[in-house]
Amino acid sequence: EVTWDASAAEKGGYDTFMAKEIAEQPKAVSDTLLGRIGTDGRLKLDEMRLTDAELREVDKVVVIACGTAYHSGMVAKYAIEHWTRIPTEVELASEFRYRDPVVGPRTLVIAISQSGETMDTIMALRFAREQGAKVLAICNTQGSTIPRESDAVVYTYAGPEVAVASTKAFLTQIVACYLVALYVAQVRGNKYGDEIAAVVRELQDMPRKVDLVLDTTEEMKRIADELKDAPSVLFIGRHVGFPVALEGALKLKELAYMHAEGFAAGELKHGPIALLEDGVPVIVVVPSPAGRSVLHEKIISNIQEVRARGARTIVIAEEGDEAVVPYADTIVRIPACPTLLQPLVATVPLQVFAAAMATAKGLDVDQPRNLAKSVTVE
Amino acid sequence: EVTWDASAAEKGGYDTFMAKEIAEQPKAVSDTLLGRIGTDGRLKLDEMRLTDAELREVDKVVVIACGTAYHSGMVAKYAIEHWTRIPTEVELASEFRYRDPVVGPRTLVIAISQSGETMDTIMALRFAREQGAKVLAICNTQGSTIPRESDAVVYTYAGPEVAVASTKAFLTQIVACYLVALYVAQVRGNKYGDEIAAVVRELQDMPRKVDLVLDTTEEMKRIADELKDAPSVLFIGRHVGFPVALEGALKLKELAYMHAEGFAAGELKHGPIALLEDGVPVIVVVPSPAGRSVLHEKIISNIQEVRARGARTIVIAEEGDEAVVPYADTIVRIPACPTLLQPLVATVPLQVFAAAMATAKGLDVDQPRNLAKSVTVE
Repeated sequence: EVTWDASAAEKGGYDTFMAKEIAEQPKAVSDTLLGRIGTDGRLKLDEMRLTDAELREVDKVVVIACGTAYHSGMVAKYAIEHWTRIPTEVELASEFRYRDPVVGPRTLVIAISQSGETMDTIMALRFAREQGAKVLAICNTQGSTIPRESDAVVYTYAGPEVAVASTKAFLTQIVACYLVALYVAQVRGNKYGDEIAAVVRELQDMPRKVDLVLDTTEEMKRIADELKDAPSVLFIGRHVGFPVALEGALKLKELAYMHAEGFAAGELKHGPIALLEDGVPVIVVVPSPAGRSVLHEKIISNIQEVRARGARTIVIAEEGDEAVVPYADTIVRIPACPTLLQPLVATVPLQVFAAAMATAKGLDVDQPRNLAKSVTVE
Repeated sequence: EVTWDASAAEKGGYDTFMAKEIAEQPKAVSDTLLGRIGTDGRLKLDEMRLTDAELREVDKVVVIACGTAYHSGMVAKYAIEHWTRIPTEVELASEFRYRDPVVGPRTLVIAISQSGETMDTIMALRFAREQGAKVLAICNTQGSTIPRESDAVVYTYAGPEVAVASTKAFLTQIVACYLVALYVAQVRGNKYGDEIAAVVRELQDMPRKVDLVLDTTEEMKRIADELKDAPSVLFIGRHVGFPVALEGALKLKELAYMHAEGFAAGELKHGPIALLEDGVPVIVVVPSPAGRSVLHEKIISNIQEVRARGARTIVIAEEGDEAVVPYADTIVRIPACPTLLQPLVATVPLQVFAAAMATAKGLDVDQPRNLAKSVTVE
């Protein structure tokens, strides 16, 4: 008897859609960069219907999003402010709409949604446009509501995402935000052409690095297997590693239904450190030592703090970062990246970890309980 | 044999410093308002060394703080933007310092710290001043480092706070932020004198309402006793109830060492709702139905969502709010308040709850493990 499993075929040989989509991330990042860099090294964003004059007038950026997309916005804030010097806020769409925010014609609102149908985000962008703000959508679904109702759109080319827990959409949302930030910097002259071209080259090298970091998959599965009975897992990071920690925790909540919380590492001693006791796993996202050395030093002292309270430290650190070795119970290596691009690799082992935890607990990775793929109600 | 317990005397008859400090909150709020309202109803802030001209030039407010003080800043953001229309960001001091923020001479930085010695906040305010920003300190300790290094200071008059987990300092930080916001509105003419006087009268009525809400103490202890074996407790809120939810969760983490997490209610369905299963306690901070009716409706649908997943709902709602009754497994009544002032009462039962959970678990309420009262290292 031969049984034909259509679903297995759709999964391309992977056990789950999520595993397939994690593996597709190098291509998703690459496709999102495709055709957006001219032969002269300048960025071209086809669907950027805002004029240069409009972009030059922007005096504030507000990113609105929900869930995982909100974390991509948190990552983007660091890059937008760093590259363009335009003050940037990131706000939960569900809060933005109802809190009387200060937005106007010189505000650029960036609305991020994989499906383009997230109701909270739709309501927030309508409100922003009523106040006269310009709205730019970052979206994975052609012709959906959010891009249709926006002044401009930069599509992510992640391809269809079937698993409820977002993975490749997240990485491409970060890439799209970075393209927008660099484009704005180009238009406003915040960066020279060669400076932008240098960042773009680094972005173009990221699919290769994301592919390399997939090599940690078996290791993350082993770690998940060891930790599957832990009552909780904490995640800490600093700078762009902070939203990565939040995203790692969200994935674990969504898939393994367990207590998982992400913190800015500097906040630990202002409260959450009380949670630590012998054996509590703490996953640490270590910033590149090549970036801002003080950040790296601070996270090492955070690792020492949590270890001193008996925590088991699982340290996500760049190749060649030897300073963290003495403090890591387990070390997971990721390729060295420019400071702002690290989230594109650092997130991947956390995605694999969450899926593996769910599998170890016998849970459905692709269809976690209570969740819908796109949230089309408020 | 008569034994003299000096510590019991210091605790004024309460079992713990925290219980004493919770009970002192009406006076702390009242003392923080004292002498700051002239006979003409206009605000006078003695230590406001910034000139009217300087305040009129402010084009952005950035609140920097850590831990509980950060939550008071999150509450304040809603009020500052609502009353002054100045865009306001709230940032963790440990992140602000290292992320290359956009601040300058027209930025008003509000640094909030009970001790005035929080190292992360000190480093952040020094950085802000180097960029030319004006810094206003909100602090409970006369002559400490943060007020000394700031351009202006508004002291909270909570009196000495001995318990490690902050309670009365938190309430007075909110009051001080509100005084600053109203003062700025007065200087800039965003509000008429009578409008400011009306809010001030409402503030002056808050000590009475905080006193009233202390009547929920026995009820919260009973609820804690019932829930003491729950593996986790979730807190949800919207608008100013969102930071209240975060603060309730932080207190529970600090004191009862348990999984407790606060969420913006609108975010639940974007991930955390996967955590819900039969009997998980969810504490809901319900906005005033008199404020923005849409907020109230949305939270009712959030309560329905969590209940449909089997959660046990403990609903903190205003006297007279009957619409929530059908969805509450347990209802805790708080006095009706103007929308923005609700956190001053809604937080109190959550403080009592966290302390009672710790007591029920046999833990030290005043000296939770791993934590220091003021964090004087980065």
